[in-house]
Amino acid sequence: MRVLGIDPGLTRCGCAVIDGSPGRPPRAVTYSVLRTPPDAELGHRLLAISDAIAALISTHQPDVLAVERVFSQHNVRTVMGTGQAAGVALLAAARAGIPVAMYTPSEVKASVTGSGDADKGQVTAMVTRLLTLPEPPRPADAADALALAICHAWRGAALQRRAVASTALGRGLPAGAWGAGR
Amino acid sequence: MRVLGIDPGLTRCGCAVIDGSPGRPPRAVTYSVLRTPPDAELGHRLLAISDAIAALISTHQPDVLAVERVFSQHNVRTVMGTGQAAGVALLAAARAGIPVAMYTPSEVKASVTGSGDADKGQVTAMVTRLLTLPEPPRPADAADALALAICHAWRGAALQRRAVASTALGRGLPAGAWGAGR
Repeated sequence: MRVLGIDPGLTRCGCAVIDGSPGRPPRAVTYSVLRTPPDAELGHRLLAISDAIAALISTHQPDVLAVERVFSQHNVRTVMGTGQAAGVALLAAARAGIPVAMYTPSEVKASVTGSGDADKGQVTAMVTRLLTLPEPPRPADAADALALAICHAWRGAALQRRAVASTALGRGLPAGAWGAGR
Repeated sequence: MRVLGIDPGLTRCGCAVIDGSPGRPPRAVTYSVLRTPPDAELGHRLLAISDAIAALISTHQPDVLAVERVFSQHNVRTVMGTGQAAGVALLAAARAGIPVAMYTPSEVKASVTGSGDADKGQVTAMVTRLLTLPEPPRPADAADALALAICHAWRGAALQRRAVASTALGRGLPAGAWGAGR
């Protein structure tokens, strides 16, 4: 499964493409941090993010987009910027017809470090180890996007199987990351 | 000046097009509330909003997009949805090459009622009166989008003139709604 992970942000937007499936070591295809200048017009910043994500989708043909789901953040201004960037990412996925999964920061941390309270250093260290990268990805936003993508490759596949199993048993879909944001 | 006002939201997105300039009665060209079902996939909801706004821009050729700037809201979940919808609206404007202005709810209320603390009923009543509509716009989100557009037609033009005057005088641009969101 090829996963595009996006850690949305206006100033720094982490983007990562990995190949992975449960029980196997994931492989990094590409990762980067897209920056847009804080003094540029907001619409142009969103356009740059939109075009970059559309280009990643078109070049790497991911099966799914994994995005960070923000539940709480320090100030509303930051949340708005994150929401605007996330909206543009989700729109790019919908236009390309690829499904979206959303994970909270603690789900992502738990997935790659075993602890939902892990700090950024731990996440970076584990991402480097899991992907056998020659050095830690810089800046940290790239590591977060890689962690998101790994999280989905491991958890999302399991959730999908559970969803299929539940449906087959005539029960409802489990509360999970699939179809999140409804 | 033709203004497209957008009161962004995932479940209800207010859209209004008006013609107006300072000191003249504004005229409503069209207004509506775009709804997307809460149980639809998030990406598809954003796609519907994006397509509807692009269609409004293409049909009515506004000179500017006026969007509500959210500073505080009750819960982060709502802010994220508003941010995602706003991001998609700002992206549509940038793609069409039209500038964006942002106003806080109290700037909008002050513009059409004279008070930044006015309630929804007052805003709806004044929008109905200013546009000489036969009856109040329903639902309220349409009135909010109309008020935003009127606010820009009146304030934005003044701010633009002030900006030009300040530049001509060799001073900096005034802190205002233009180029907001930087």
